[in-house]
Amino acid sequence: MQALLLCPFARAWIRLLRSAFAGLLAAVPLFCQIVTWERIRDSDKEPWNWLTYSGNLNGQRYSKLDQIHTGNAAQLRPAWVYQMNGAHRQTASPVVIDGILYLSESPAEVLAIDGRTGRSLWSFSRPVPNDLRLCCGMPNRGVAVLGDRVYWASIDAYLIALDAKTGRKIWEVQIADYRKGYSSTGAPLIVKDKVITGIAGGEYGIRGFLDAYDAQSGQRVWRFWTVPAAGEPGVETWGGESWKTGAASTWITGAYDVEQNLIIWGTGNPGPDWNGDQRPGDNLYSDCAIALDADTGKLKWYFQFTPHDVWDWDSVQVPILADTIFRGQPRKLLLWANRNGFYYVLDRTTGKFLHARPFVKQTWAQGIDDHGRPIVLPGTEPSETGTKVYPDLGGGANWWSSSYSPQTDLYYVAARERGGIYFKGDPTYREGAPFHGGGTRSIPRDESYGALRALKASTGELVWEQRFVRIPGSGVLSTAGGLVFFGSPEGDFLALNARNGEILYRFRTGAPVVANPVTYAIDGRQQVALVAGRALFVFELPPAASAVPAARSSAKAASKRR
Amino acid sequence: MQALLLCPFARAWIRLLRSAFAGLLAAVPLFCQIVTWERIRDSDKEPWNWLTYSGNLNGQRYSKLDQIHTGNAAQLRPAWVYQMNGAHRQTASPVVIDGILYLSESPAEVLAIDGRTGRSLWSFSRPVPNDLRLCCGMPNRGVAVLGDRVYWASIDAYLIALDAKTGRKIWEVQIADYRKGYSSTGAPLIVKDKVITGIAGGEYGIRGFLDAYDAQSGQRVWRFWTVPAAGEPGVETWGGESWKTGAASTWITGAYDVEQNLIIWGTGNPGPDWNGDQRPGDNLYSDCAIALDADTGKLKWYFQFTPHDVWDWDSVQVPILADTIFRGQPRKLLLWANRNGFYYVLDRTTGKFLHARPFVKQTWAQGIDDHGRPIVLPGTEPSETGTKVYPDLGGGANWWSSSYSPQTDLYYVAARERGGIYFKGDPTYREGAPFHGGGTRSIPRDESYGALRALKASTGELVWEQRFVRIPGSGVLSTAGGLVFFGSPEGDFLALNARNGEILYRFRTGAPVVANPVTYAIDGRQQVALVAGRALFVFELPPAASAVPAARSSAKAASKRR
Repeated sequence: MQALLLCPFARAWIRLLRSAFAGLLAAVPLFCQIVTWERIRDSDKEPWNWLTYSGNLNGQRYSKLDQIHTGNAAQLRPAWVYQMNGAHRQTASPVVIDGILYLSESPAEVLAIDGRTGRSLWSFSRPVPNDLRLCCGMPNRGVAVLGDRVYWASIDAYLIALDAKTGRKIWEVQIADYRKGYSSTGAPLIVKDKVITGIAGGEYGIRGFLDAYDAQSGQRVWRFWTVPAAGEPGVETWGGESWKTGAASTWITGAYDVEQNLIIWGTGNPGPDWNGDQRPGDNLYSDCAIALDADTGKLKWYFQFTPHDVWDWDSVQVPILADTIFRGQPRKLLLWANRNGFYYVLDRTTGKFLHARPFVKQTWAQGIDDHGRPIVLPGTEPSETGTKVYPDLGGGANWWSSSYSPQTDLYYVAARERGGIYFKGDPTYREGAPFHGGGTRSIPRDESYGALRALKASTGELVWEQRFVRIPGSGVLSTAGGLVFFGSPEGDFLALNARNGEILYRFRTGAPVVANPVTYAIDGRQQVALVAGRALFVFELPPAASAVPAARSSAKAASKRR
Repeated sequence: MQALLLCPFARAWIRLLRSAFAGLLAAVPLFCQIVTWERIRDSDKEPWNWLTYSGNLNGQRYSKLDQIHTGNAAQLRPAWVYQMNGAHRQTASPVVIDGILYLSESPAEVLAIDGRTGRSLWSFSRPVPNDLRLCCGMPNRGVAVLGDRVYWASIDAYLIALDAKTGRKIWEVQIADYRKGYSSTGAPLIVKDKVITGIAGGEYGIRGFLDAYDAQSGQRVWRFWTVPAAGEPGVETWGGESWKTGAASTWITGAYDVEQNLIIWGTGNPGPDWNGDQRPGDNLYSDCAIALDADTGKLKWYFQFTPHDVWDWDSVQVPILADTIFRGQPRKLLLWANRNGFYYVLDRTTGKFLHARPFVKQTWAQGIDDHGRPIVLPGTEPSETGTKVYPDLGGGANWWSSSYSPQTDLYYVAARERGGIYFKGDPTYREGAPFHGGGTRSIPRDESYGALRALKASTGELVWEQRFVRIPGSGVLSTAGGLVFFGSPEGDFLALNARNGEILYRFRTGAPVVANPVTYAIDGRQQVALVAGRALFVFELPPAASAVPAARSSAKAASKRR
């Protein structure tokens, strides 16, 4: 680690060296961890790093690395394992910079791990209050890095900046008061000089928002309330004062459209979950994709997937920005397999609805109309005696990342095939208490299953699938090696042929996967990392099979860039 | 698993097939799990199984498998991982029968795992009382198998028989009352038709014993009290009524000498740990090797390593029975690297002391006299102001298994180089409460370290060592492939050249190892299994490197049998 001491000199040198040696940098000893905004923005120029939650700002979770490919994936093997502490299910995916993996560990720890050895370089841990208000355990999905700092949002709703070299805390700011039901579980997103962070608490009648903080000082630069207040446009979609407890959380990391300077982010269900009587109207901006000006936080457009949701279908998928052909024309698209069971194609410059198609069994809507509004079937609302609807509250997809591969023009999603019985109940709000307004139950003898599905990006048509007995919880990574990586609900790390779904490699990690895979290269060797159960597994090829240095491979990939 | 349905027919067939096809059985599909006593007794005839805690009854933890050898160990790789639940440190090693791994999981679970896939076949769990009396967490070191049953001793001191096919409980018997400070943490040992199980609780002033239960009915056949009662021989080594709280627990699995029908077992420290004033005398049979007639539980001989122990040096190492040359003559030896810092060679037919030599730094004894009695240095007893002594209470070695390789005639031990400051305190006994009579502290700036050491079996001379920064907690496995397997305190699974200690393979498991490695073969491929942290790791060669089927390799090894 003595190399890090050179950091003060390094920023200028990096620029020089980068221009001189291009992709070769990955093969020379690392000497600095300075992550400029330009590096994050142009992350496809250095695929040997994984600079941001989704690998790239467009949310594609696609890597140009191709050292591991369909021809050698069968030779993969674990390089090392890092076991986490505690009894918590782990859901983070690392950010990887110049050979060092940064990730969070539930309930409240941040780790820096040497990617060569799997050994911890430092860890930062934070006490966890014992009166948190949580719906669903203590997940934390990762960190963001900018400059020489690591940014992390804690379960008690603080945003914290750490020194990337030492793990020492630089500053912390309170995002919201956890006693009111707020919490933080998602990985922050760096946009320019700002740290963008959402908030969780949709089951506690919070009023949701998306925040931007100055990365240097920690000062809040803007806040976009996802539920308009009295007098603001959109509040008319909330009956009475229901906007005050309207939820619309923002608990999964969004994407950023560089050209438009737009932050695109998903919002959660309206509160209370399963009783909409007190909140007649569409309940904006719950269950939406929202597009905000990155500098001001002003709303540019929105698209609501499930108006007046009474099934708890948070639209918290990572937005995927893809430029591809739609009905014969190149278009700037937003692709979204939604928790409500439909796959959507939107125009991301305007938020205009273009196309939708179910990607799992759904029984609540006759279809989606020309404006993108679901035609809700009568009798599908939760009731006092229980209403059977597909999908269940977990949805057709959930928070784990989908992936889009420009190489195959396919959208890869972990699909959940399961229905639920929805009950309507008491919608009384009490600050800091669960605000469900009902409940759900599973369907007896429901033939539920999971599947990794590859959909045609522009239409959502199924191209291939791999089915699993259990319901999956893994994100998908696609690569220029013609591969997708995935963790099965049975705990298998899988490498599949991206074109046809053939399983090329399987390693049994011994615990279900509820996290996202990432890929990067160290010393010229591509690795794939995935948290499974309570351990981080890293895979690589044997030395002989890693003949093509990742640097060359990435340079090659870069030359093929669209 | 349909194969198991054939079990009722299989016992006779096994005998037939075994005689007809010898070592080839491992390569044909498994069809039964009937483990006869004869199979356990003759475990070296089927090295593709690991039939008892130490692999063999002589405690050597040595395997005749040689498919993985010094020439190909560098090609090892994880085959699968099984992650355990809960926050407990895991210390079990599996028993492996015809492709199925049986092991325990702390705090109170028994698992059957398919060795081909790492998937759980069944698990049995037991509620844990919330008023246990424990010194040192909730370790459990494994199970025993006989017939079609799995035997396990639970933390609340019950012996439980499970159906090996289903995990269903067949019977349970209370070994002792946990409210009085008893607990069970060791793996039982099968001897003929009996289940031998020790007891823990040495820090609670229990009166120790070793028990034999009828494997069929669960009825207790005999009990040997490790502390004699009033009127019994040996009670004169306890002042006053101190025998009543004399401890001398039996918490680690012993060995069995087939020829002599002798169970040889180690006993723990006398109570209270660090204040011997109330118990003047040698305190028999604490800190002993005891040899009992397996049918009656009658004492045949004993050897006491640390008379009147005031440092907490339980003699709970697994006894190693080895037939080798001692001072030019073939002898039936008992080899023992003791917690007190000395390596002992005894005659195991009589218990007679033959030789001792320190294997770590020790400062408490001038040496060991001709009768095997330590010549204790003055001023080394715990005191009110603290007495600095090497080794610390953890000892030069601890419970994790040493190994003896007949191939190298070396004894392999994880050595602890660390001193402690011992304090004498209040020796008042209260039932069910800790009964320490003092305490210990670590030495400031002590240059502690750990080492895997290879000692000449007959002399204890150091042949090679591998040092580690931290104190180790891993057992050692040696094999006919010229290898030793070990888990470093830093969490590395290691394969080393048994002759010179060269590290041939290293895999970082991401958590310290406090368990014993085992080896076996499935479908003709040798595997090595080791619990590290809270996960079971299984290693094997790539298919191409496994060219020699284990069946042939073991047949070859069998032909070389001494």
